Amino acid sequence: MTISGENSSNLIAVAKKTRLAALKLAVLSTDAKNQAIEAIAQALEAAKDEILQANIADCERATTEGIAKPLYKRLQLDEHKLRDAITGVRDVGKLPDPVGEVQVHRELDKGLILKRVTCPLGVLGIIFEARPEAAIQIVTLAIKSGNGIILKGGKEATLSCEAIVKAIKQGLSQTAVNPDVVQLLTTREEILELLKLDKYVDLIIPRGSNSFVRFVQENTRIPVLGHADGICHLYVDKAADIEKAIAITIDAKTNYPAACNAIETLLVHANIAREFLPKVGEMQQLNVELRGDERTREILPNIAAATEKDWETEYSDFILSIKVVDSLEDAIAHINDYGSKHTDAIVTEDAEAAETFLSLVNAAGVYHNCSTRFADGFRYGFGAEVGISTQQMPPRGPVGLEGLVTYKYQMTGNGHIVATYTGAEAKSFTHQDLE
Amino acid sequence: MTISGENSSNLIAVAKKTRLAALKLAVLSTDAKNQAIEAIAQALEAAKDEILQANIADCERATTEGIAKPLYKRLQLDEHKLRDAITGVRDVGKLPDPVGEVQVHRELDKGLILKRVTCPLGVLGIIFEARPEAAIQIVTLAIKSGNGIILKGGKEATLSCEAIVKAIKQGLSQTAVNPDVVQLLTTREEILELLKLDKYVDLIIPRGSNSFVRFVQENTRIPVLGHADGICHLYVDKAADIEKAIAITIDAKTNYPAACNAIETLLVHANIAREFLPKVGEMQQLNVELRGDERTREILPNIAAATEKDWETEYSDFILSIKVVDSLEDAIAHINDYGSKHTDAIVTEDAEAAETFLSLVNAAGVYHNCSTRFADGFRYGFGAEVGISTQQMPPRGPVGLEGLVTYKYQMTGNGHIVATYTGAEAKSFTHQDLE
Repeated sequence: MTISGENSSNLIAVAKKTRLAALKLAVLSTDAKNQAIEAIAQALEAAKDEILQANIADCERATTEGIAKPLYKRLQLDEHKLRDAITGVRDVGKLPDPVGEVQVHRELDKGLILKRVTCPLGVLGIIFEARPEAAIQIVTLAIKSGNGIILKGGKEATLSCEAIVKAIKQGLSQTAVNPDVVQLLTTREEILELLKLDKYVDLIIPRGSNSFVRFVQENTRIPVLGHADGICHLYVDKAADIEKAIAITIDAKTNYPAACNAIETLLVHANIAREFLPKVGEMQQLNVELRGDERTREILPNIAAATEKDWETEYSDFILSIKVVDSLEDAIAHINDYGSKHTDAIVTEDAEAAETFLSLVNAAGVYHNCSTRFADGFRYGFGAEVGISTQQMPPRGPVGLEGLVTYKYQMTGNGHIVATYTGAEAKSFTHQDLE
Repeated sequence: MTISGENSSNLIAVAKKTRLAALKLAVLSTDAKNQAIEAIAQALEAAKDEILQANIADCERATTEGIAKPLYKRLQLDEHKLRDAITGVRDVGKLPDPVGEVQVHRELDKGLILKRVTCPLGVLGIIFEARPEAAIQIVTLAIKSGNGIILKGGKEATLSCEAIVKAIKQGLSQTAVNPDVVQLLTTREEILELLKLDKYVDLIIPRGSNSFVRFVQENTRIPVLGHADGICHLYVDKAADIEKAIAITIDAKTNYPAACNAIETLLVHANIAREFLPKVGEMQQLNVELRGDERTREILPNIAAATEKDWETEYSDFILSIKVVDSLEDAIAHINDYGSKHTDAIVTEDAEAAETFLSLVNAAGVYHNCSTRFADGFRYGFGAEVGISTQQMPPRGPVGLEGLVTYKYQMTGNGHIVATYTGAEAKSFTHQDLE
């Protein structure tokens, strides 16, 4: 189930084996894939005790080694979390199959038919930190989308991940899906090796801290789905409804500050600052630490000064930096300078200001009169979230199962050649969309 | 119009200026962009003599410096080529606007509306070799898609490019589009600088030799649209119609061997080799050099031996390597090993074999009973081709204007916060698609 990883040729062999198995998975019917997903759910239920025991052993070792408390909480897998994860497996089974969707269907000429059809990417490389149940979710999504998957979990969760992957492979062995589609790496050295396998791995999904994701992005030529920073902004316009503005500010900052879609910086139009900022000041009673620029501190003198560094920091904590701006344009310029292209919002009753903001802010999500915390695949109705991407090219923003497939052009003719359509006697294409 | 490029801060200033101008271009109406495109066409017509004079000077200098003949042909811009390029400008004007397309329109809850809308990428970096009229086409495509553009032409074409860009800027100066959206770099050193500007440039499109494209791909963290190699295959199955097979082989090899979608390797099923290969042998009379593996040479003893290196070579010339295979599976395995994921075709009357081939060959284009030469944006009916991508992730294959846009999620609420939808009293989302 695991490999030694002593050298990269081992890992290449593993990747090739995964690829070969994935090639067969790629052409399975939706039913066959869903049966495999149900088999995984059942196998995980059957292996429940073994998995929980393995997790206890991981937790004990981690405690001995003095693991940090938040990491311990993520590592710990109780019966409840496991049951939720298994429910999640069955939920993925119910999602529409992202493979085989015909996106283009066009007659180029009589008998010459072009189709653009979605197909699996091939092999995914997933590197995640402590949380062992992440393996369950991501394996299920990979199989639903017809992809092989090479997993590398956090070293603290090694025994848990081994028990989970063992159960998954056990489940798959009863189905049309070759258990080789799932591979688990267990040594840290293998991460760098994995990142070099651009010939064998089609997409890397890193799940962990900002610095870890940045490390992955900077050390691979394989496309990376994810984001390092989530520096989200809320801009309260001069034409804002104060009540909405304060409710959204509190939600976007305090609902779950560790989330990437929580705001870090509040921008306030000068015309509304005297009325609005005192209400923001009350957030200190919600244990939110406020840091402001000079003009903010004229109104809220008891808060700390924000420095340049604050504008470029994702606190992931109950801290909010505040800046007073003179115009919508200044707010947009600040966001485009310091933002991480994740999600930014405006509160205003001025429809034109809202439109300008939504048009000119360069981010995966641009919101008007609602909390940035809505940036999430489940909330968008995707049924699953593979990750949130802050790159400029698609896929961008919360990415569902469609982020795990690509497409190919399939063309069928009857001996058609290009010479017929070139030169002086060239025949014309019909270019007629079908269906 | 041009910049000195003495240091990267100059180039950063240019990129920032382009970005700022592009931000305004991004929100222009289709009409305003089309007016700008018509103004470009008229300005090019008005500057015709100046451009042709500049090109004559480029050609004279190139001749003095002993330029290679094929490169000279690409460099040369006569009245006819220029007229075609200007017609191409007006054709782009007639294409549908790729910006502002609503891809998702969904109610998450009453009054909370999510839209996914296409928008420009931002700034494109285009590096092309000698052909000066490429600048005309790509600038027009950039403006139609709302993007700024930084051009670097081949050094042989410097005067021609300067004259072209001068005319384009002159044309734009009469329109809603700020001429700053188009920038021309003229020194070779600036290429490497440009590739480092991942903060300011959103997409690089290299147009040139395989090795040049590979150099670009390996020296930038900016997404690259294009492909290095076009190693396309034709597999003639045991159930092939010989007549179709030979017509397609000739077309795919000889119609335009320098094109990336021409075939380099012919795979022939052993059962049909004795009947089919002698007809392929006749291609030598079309000046096609044939190279075969051992089993091919048993049937065509007068051709040279193909070596391992042949399978991984894009000849871009009248050369064809041939290999006899024992099965469809062997053909697929060879293609997935040696192919460049560009376009590969099967000739067969066996529908099941065709389906297996189209499913299992991993390439942007998989064809049945037609020539690989159809892999082209114009032939696909895209109206324009930005490039052909051989990467695994979309966009893949021939890419039209849609390759120059991305999307953003726009959400509009009325004070909606996430707290409403979490916890014990959580409200449900409606997730209802609109329109």
